[in-house]
Amino acid sequence: MTRAVRAEIIAVGSEMLTPDRVDTNSLFITERLNEIGVDVIAKTVAADDREVIAGLLRLALTRADLVVFTGGLGPTSDDLTREAVAGTLELPLDEDPATIERLRRRFARRGMTMPDINRKQALVPRGAEVLANDNGTAPGLLIDRGGRLVVLLPGPPREMKPMLEALARGRLAGFAGGRRVFRRVLKTTGRGESLVEEVAQPIYSRWADADVPVRTTILATPGSVDLHLAVSTDSAERARAVLDAATTEIAQALGPSVYATDNRRLEEVVGAMLRERGLWIATAESCTGGLLASRLTDVPGSSDYVERGVVCYSNRAKTELLAVPEAMIRAHGAVSEPVGVAMARGVREVSHTHLGVAITGIAGPSGGTEAKPVGTVVVAIAWDGGERVRTMWFPGDREHVKFFASQAALDMVRRHLLALDA
Amino acid sequence: MTRAVRAEIIAVGSEMLTPDRVDTNSLFITERLNEIGVDVIAKTVAADDREVIAGLLRLALTRADLVVFTGGLGPTSDDLTREAVAGTLELPLDEDPATIERLRRRFARRGMTMPDINRKQALVPRGAEVLANDNGTAPGLLIDRGGRLVVLLPGPPREMKPMLEALARGRLAGFAGGRRVFRRVLKTTGRGESLVEEVAQPIYSRWADADVPVRTTILATPGSVDLHLAVSTDSAERARAVLDAATTEIAQALGPSVYATDNRRLEEVVGAMLRERGLWIATAESCTGGLLASRLTDVPGSSDYVERGVVCYSNRAKTELLAVPEAMIRAHGAVSEPVGVAMARGVREVSHTHLGVAITGIAGPSGGTEAKPVGTVVVAIAWDGGERVRTMWFPGDREHVKFFASQAALDMVRRHLLALDA
Repeated sequence: MTRAVRAEIIAVGSEMLTPDRVDTNSLFITERLNEIGVDVIAKTVAADDREVIAGLLRLALTRADLVVFTGGLGPTSDDLTREAVAGTLELPLDEDPATIERLRRRFARRGMTMPDINRKQALVPRGAEVLANDNGTAPGLLIDRGGRLVVLLPGPPREMKPMLEALARGRLAGFAGGRRVFRRVLKTTGRGESLVEEVAQPIYSRWADADVPVRTTILATPGSVDLHLAVSTDSAERARAVLDAATTEIAQALGPSVYATDNRRLEEVVGAMLRERGLWIATAESCTGGLLASRLTDVPGSSDYVERGVVCYSNRAKTELLAVPEAMIRAHGAVSEPVGVAMARGVREVSHTHLGVAITGIAGPSGGTEAKPVGTVVVAIAWDGGERVRTMWFPGDREHVKFFASQAALDMVRRHLLALDA
Repeated sequence: MTRAVRAEIIAVGSEMLTPDRVDTNSLFITERLNEIGVDVIAKTVAADDREVIAGLLRLALTRADLVVFTGGLGPTSDDLTREAVAGTLELPLDEDPATIERLRRRFARRGMTMPDINRKQALVPRGAEVLANDNGTAPGLLIDRGGRLVVLLPGPPREMKPMLEALARGRLAGFAGGRRVFRRVLKTTGRGESLVEEVAQPIYSRWADADVPVRTTILATPGSVDLHLAVSTDSAERARAVLDAATTEIAQALGPSVYATDNRRLEEVVGAMLRERGLWIATAESCTGGLLASRLTDVPGSSDYVERGVVCYSNRAKTELLAVPEAMIRAHGAVSEPVGVAMARGVREVSHTHLGVAITGIAGPSGGTEAKPVGTVVVAIAWDGGERVRTMWFPGDREHVKFFASQAALDMVRRHLLALDA
């Protein structure tokens, strides 16, 4: 097997180096490159600075088969990509008569004379191919450097995108020998990153050495540890078979911690399970303040299984809305397993639903004690003839604790529904 | 004036080289570096690949005074930043006993034994400073390379951010000499971007030509149009005076649309107003499904003014919990001004609070009609002796409509409380 074809993306423009601008061109470029079997190993946003651009190009040529620039092809003095690339590769710049003619006609169509500053957009590094731009003035450029390709695309998305599409169908089609990248994400919850790694690593390190190797990245986000699998192959069928097999093996090892292999969020998975089983749910929340209900109802069609939710921020609300005895709150505290269970039971009874789910806890930053520090959360569910309750502790600030708590509650519902089938 | 101090940011993680993930850490890092007078000349997302990381570091050291890495400090075999940086700089890695001890204690607090795999997080390149991490396992690292600094920060934002804040106040303060960038954000809601621009532009274009020029960027996010002001100067006092004057002038022109000039979110502003006035609030939600209550309770101390919330996803819940007459729902529909007002009144009465706020609407994607298309939302508030109701339409998908609707409800409460003072 040949090694994967590797690309680097370099987006040029100082305006994308501010605190509130992101480069989105590279996402589109990555998608198109992946589709034609090219991996992206690095992407950079570079200042409008000749030396910065030159250094990045020299580095990229030591390790990438394809270097894609975007931006810096405009007519102004800030636009330096063409000159920096030609200088680095020691290629003289010649004025291209066909491009000059195209620019003249383009301006003429709008009743204008081509300004002199646009002349530099017709400069072509000797030996480069000119890529047509139907949506703007700057043509793209493609330079073949002993089999490694350097591509210069304009920055405006409406100019860059069609140019790259044309390249991907034309000059770059088959560049990676028909290979493409296929992906799968395996999402887990309820186990830490290191525990997931410990179980899954022996399996995916074996798959990394298979005929069609599966590359795996582990990604921990709040409340979810996700395994990203990718294979690069020329057969979509082969890719699906390999990803199916690897996913099944890892999922079996991780057991019920795996909640999705199809990119769904936990609330979508739980929603689909409730719908399939024809069950209704109601929520009772204290410290999460409505976040659990909000997540459940983020899912289209959730009015088919969410009956109601109550947010009992005061103890009076717990008593009035859910019939949690005042004496129980006094005896055990609002954050306690008896109160959690009473809330779950209470909301289930008043709403006449199959399942009640409750959260009570201390989201912080104040309100913690030595016995019940900030981050202590009780999650409970109640159903006809049974209940389950757990006390957990979550790190982080208020919003983190709220999110983790809602995730734990959704996961308790999910595992309960799974157990019903067993 | 000496040349600007230059930084490069390198975010490590193959998962950020996919078509749907953006690196947002670099925006925060850029903001903090700009504040201490450091310019960012390039930022890269690099694959989890030792050679890729090494090449970027070598290049950065030829031209940047400061190289900031984020990510790749985790315990798994993918996490290569520490090893790649130490290898490139030819520094041996020593196990740091203090870090091992901290990790052991951290796991013990959760009743766990430190997995062996976490040991590598205690490896320190010889001569590096260890940067404390109060929010996770991976400590940061700082290496002084003949006056050029290489900083390694963890990837998770809640670990990275406080660590960089501490560095910017401590070790990096004064790294760039005197000049700093000072910013102010003026947040508005209830007007579109072009309307805000129309009113504010003549004012901020005047400030752009002042002695200490104020640069202004307008940034529209869902539910908020924000003006970002920035000045670059060596005097904090001067910066404050200029920003105060510009902010005051723009805020006067925009009137009550401005809800914050101190970076607070709308729910914080509303919370502070309720607290100052000693008022209690209760929420009744249909289409937002608890999002309004969740946002109100995202604010620390909100149990001082949020009494309860109800999520009436079914019509029965509206009737049972809020005494909305069934006949009214039949006559006007669940998404109607009479029902919105009845929900606000109802929740206020059952909770004995000063203010009831209600939302009912069609979040989509289904459920719309010609008369009430998806995105139609009714927002209402009720107080002792009065009420206010408004029907609005919001664009976008389900989660957008939910967010806009909660924003509109918070803003209705804010404007009501402002009017009480007038």
